[in-house]
Amino acid sequence: MSYTAPLKDMLFVMNELAGLAEVNAMPGCEDATPETAEAILEENAKFCSEVVAPLNHSGDQQPSSWADGSVTTSAGFKEAFRQFGAAGWQGVQHPVEFGGQGLPKLLATPCIEMLNSANLSFALCPLLTDGTIEALMTAGTKEQQDTFIANFISGKWTGTMNLTEPQAGSDLALVRTRAVPQGDGTFKLSGTKIFITYGEHDMAENIVHLVLARTPNAPEGVKGISLFVVPKFLVKADGSLGERNDVHCVSIEHKLGIKASPTAVLQFGDHGGAIGTLVGEENRGLEYMFIMMNAARFAVGIQGLAVSERAYQKAVAYAKDRVQSRDLAGSAGAVTIIHQPDVRRMLMSMRAQIEGARALAYVAAATSDAAHFHPDEATRKANQAFYEYLVPIVKGWSTELAIDVTSTGVQVHGGMGFIEETGAAQYYRDARILSIYEGTTAIQANDLVGRKTARDGGAVAKGIIAQVRKTAAGLEGDAELKSIGLRLNEAAGALEEVVDYVVGNIKGDIKSVFAGSVTYLKMAGVVLGGWQMARAAAISADKLKAGEGDAKFYEAKLATARFFADQILPQALAYRTAIVDGAQSVLALTEDQF
Amino acid sequence: MSYTAPLKDMLFVMNELAGLAEVNAMPGCEDATPETAEAILEENAKFCSEVVAPLNHSGDQQPSSWADGSVTTSAGFKEAFRQFGAAGWQGVQHPVEFGGQGLPKLLATPCIEMLNSANLSFALCPLLTDGTIEALMTAGTKEQQDTFIANFISGKWTGTMNLTEPQAGSDLALVRTRAVPQGDGTFKLSGTKIFITYGEHDMAENIVHLVLARTPNAPEGVKGISLFVVPKFLVKADGSLGERNDVHCVSIEHKLGIKASPTAVLQFGDHGGAIGTLVGEENRGLEYMFIMMNAARFAVGIQGLAVSERAYQKAVAYAKDRVQSRDLAGSAGAVTIIHQPDVRRMLMSMRAQIEGARALAYVAAATSDAAHFHPDEATRKANQAFYEYLVPIVKGWSTELAIDVTSTGVQVHGGMGFIEETGAAQYYRDARILSIYEGTTAIQANDLVGRKTARDGGAVAKGIIAQVRKTAAGLEGDAELKSIGLRLNEAAGALEEVVDYVVGNIKGDIKSVFAGSVTYLKMAGVVLGGWQMARAAAISADKLKAGEGDAKFYEAKLATARFFADQILPQALAYRTAIVDGAQSVLALTEDQF
Repeated sequence: MSYTAPLKDMLFVMNELAGLAEVNAMPGCEDATPETAEAILEENAKFCSEVVAPLNHSGDQQPSSWADGSVTTSAGFKEAFRQFGAAGWQGVQHPVEFGGQGLPKLLATPCIEMLNSANLSFALCPLLTDGTIEALMTAGTKEQQDTFIANFISGKWTGTMNLTEPQAGSDLALVRTRAVPQGDGTFKLSGTKIFITYGEHDMAENIVHLVLARTPNAPEGVKGISLFVVPKFLVKADGSLGERNDVHCVSIEHKLGIKASPTAVLQFGDHGGAIGTLVGEENRGLEYMFIMMNAARFAVGIQGLAVSERAYQKAVAYAKDRVQSRDLAGSAGAVTIIHQPDVRRMLMSMRAQIEGARALAYVAAATSDAAHFHPDEATRKANQAFYEYLVPIVKGWSTELAIDVTSTGVQVHGGMGFIEETGAAQYYRDARILSIYEGTTAIQANDLVGRKTARDGGAVAKGIIAQVRKTAAGLEGDAELKSIGLRLNEAAGALEEVVDYVVGNIKGDIKSVFAGSVTYLKMAGVVLGGWQMARAAAISADKLKAGEGDAKFYEAKLATARFFADQILPQALAYRTAIVDGAQSVLALTEDQF
Repeated sequence: MSYTAPLKDMLFVMNELAGLAEVNAMPGCEDATPETAEAILEENAKFCSEVVAPLNHSGDQQPSSWADGSVTTSAGFKEAFRQFGAAGWQGVQHPVEFGGQGLPKLLATPCIEMLNSANLSFALCPLLTDGTIEALMTAGTKEQQDTFIANFISGKWTGTMNLTEPQAGSDLALVRTRAVPQGDGTFKLSGTKIFITYGEHDMAENIVHLVLARTPNAPEGVKGISLFVVPKFLVKADGSLGERNDVHCVSIEHKLGIKASPTAVLQFGDHGGAIGTLVGEENRGLEYMFIMMNAARFAVGIQGLAVSERAYQKAVAYAKDRVQSRDLAGSAGAVTIIHQPDVRRMLMSMRAQIEGARALAYVAAATSDAAHFHPDEATRKANQAFYEYLVPIVKGWSTELAIDVTSTGVQVHGGMGFIEETGAAQYYRDARILSIYEGTTAIQANDLVGRKTARDGGAVAKGIIAQVRKTAAGLEGDAELKSIGLRLNEAAGALEEVVDYVVGNIKGDIKSVFAGSVTYLKMAGVVLGGWQMARAAAISADKLKAGEGDAKFYEAKLATARFFADQILPQALAYRTAIVDGAQSVLALTEDQF
């Protein structure tokens, strides 16, 4: 059940594909030298594998539990979280002025990956706190920032996101929680919020809820939602804890997976009203929440990659250990199953998807850094657009593939995979939430189609496709890489057709376009993941020719890139057909024909 | 959580695609008139939905439990099984001379589907008993048949299959259980068998184990395995129960799914030896077990279809009930989510795969009937070959798609899908075993590649592909159906290329061929499922033109067939590329590069 951080691949992606040196060269990123990055990753890997990973299986076996409004987290979580905060891991990407390390997202991302590979349930708590910090840094008052952020970064307090209500899941227009001004700058909130991750627990002294609610006379729909900060314990002027606020955990959910992570039903204001303060301006809550959500969505994409990596490591270990059947082309005796071609296919399929997803996510992180730190405004803007296009893809594609990868991990184990003791099944169960929370894949796809593709007439998408084609063209001169380039070029062409279809039909036939929205998202993931693998192949071929570095690593990277090109990229063509020609049948049935 | 048997589609497939009338016309199948079939299906549907389906969720919540060697099954199972036996449902396809109904497989198949849709865990017990009956009818002595079969059919006793040992899963050559002749015609068995479904339970008076074991001096490997019948209680000459045999359940597994179904570790011979009798001839055990396994493999394919159907019904019900977000092309208010195009796409994807899998499986059942009952020997042989080609595809494809369909079912539910109370997650967990037991998908694919494709030089495969092309050609004249025909033809061409590749390379490059074996299996499922959907489309179009029958049903069938053609069949082309061009990268890495 152990976890070994894939530092070699992480550093390759950071240095060679995502351009850590370029990020490091930007003002504000001076500390993020390649050497520092390597040292931080190594230290984080040690913490994650030694302290957090051993709590993953036990946490699944003994989930967090609720009694009388309190939640006791799984054994070991409290102490591990104390160490997490004390070592400064919550603060990697957060402001130095509040005790953080102020490092770029490109450096924080592998740390988030490692923590999630080690323990998805545990990592959710810091993930939500990250989002809370981000929202308060963007829209909070100075007082709110001063009150909360240093305590978040130290691990003393944690943050939550309170969006969902029983009638308001994907559709936040339906939010009903009320916030009534008290005339003293505070509001009293009342309502029910569900699916609140770490909404109650025993790992921190205070839990700070960011809550979407409506003020009296607010407009209907999403334009009447405001954001409030509502701590479990009110905070006195001197920063110490005051009275218990009127927010209570009435139950936690019995879930398919991530069982150690408590998912709370929170009741606000049943005893007079939960006291909160407004974040930013009234009725702009959704906008602020989107800031938090964009960070969280990216992080959930990393979760998909992370649990896939863990499942892959387990499957490889089993395949190298389990003796069964003879080698098809070899001697009479039974051999380890890694000799079986189909086991190879399964492992390569896991590996190729993980490496493609990692590369795309880290590249996205670097574009986010460039969008923040680059001295040139036009470059910042271009990177911001690139990043925003990638966020729904990183979230949607990496989490959808996590379902496939963790399922394949079970399959590699055969019958043992179905036995809970083995542990492979936990990854399969845990992974299943990722394509749902922080916006289902369909919600990501709506974003990709509407805001990220149609709004600018496909300009950003086409710009990216042009880069993909350029990579493909660059491979054609090399005999070794040529077939990868040809497949990438073919896939890029298919993606371009789809972008044209989306842009060309969204006004006249919106339902047909959205009938293919998730397929478009998956296709974009496959093509852009394949693009990064093709870039990796070209770099690896160069390194091998030059005799630089670890030849075994570069050879494996080349083979994995070829697997991606031959076995995964061709799906893009099937997706194209489904999107461009397949909408009619999606929408053909009347409701009663189902 | 209710289940409504899809009788309309079942009867359509039986009558229009699988040719129930032709089966009925064969000697020995006179009772299987379309009217009788409909009456039996209706009665079975009633039993499954009223008695068995309500135990599905509760059985998952309160799994079967073990204490001191005994297993107590989930609440209600014992009584439901009594009713199942009393009503004659175990005997549908078994000999009249032992109390069965002697009906063709085409008629038994929908009954098996319904029972499994109602409750996968419950249905496993009769499924294993079916296999035991089949093995004893083929290879058992008259005495064995007389002793056991009537008791199986009445539901008084149940049967099990004991193949797996800790070191012998997919590879039965490694079986170690010993059977020593006692000189009186009996043997004493000793050894450990694992993963024995319903190996111990409280639903029947006796449990009869079919056990693979080695006699002293038996040859090594699979050629030295014999099959024994070992009852839990020895049977006296008068048929009454005698002494407790030395076979004991030492534990049951804690599993990801099918939790109500006890999965036993059985210890044979720890107290002097478990007494058993030989089935058939010594050292031919694997051959007999294959008879049982082929029936069981087909039935597990039906399980895949069945749990998918149940997941689909639940998803449809939720989609029609859950109000969330406005209609993209409609008014301002929130509507049920079945109005959302991506929910439509998910439901259609579930539906199309289920209908394709059902059609293919029922057609396979009819070919099995023709292989048994047809008066002409050449026709029997041809049908047997067709059936044998289809078995690994029905097993492998239907169970792999069950993972996808049940996962999509969770997704349709959004966050609620991840909460165990909802029930969608159970189907996802339950379904995950299906591609593993009774031979993993890779084992099915080995069978498809080796015995079913390469051995006859692709003759049977090519014969089927010719039929597919004929169906495709028949659609070209009709404007409505033309695009379905074109896609089917394209997919058939791709499958033919793959068959040529398999046949052409299996001697020279066996590992490359097996690197694509599972992909070939999935591809064959997609193409042949698409073929049946195309046939269904043609028939539906005819019915609509003629103004016959239920127009809404035929329109829906046409739309579903078009969805299959546009959204699923194009995958065949990607599979072709992966198989024909993609083997090199599957096998490229050395073991230490993983």
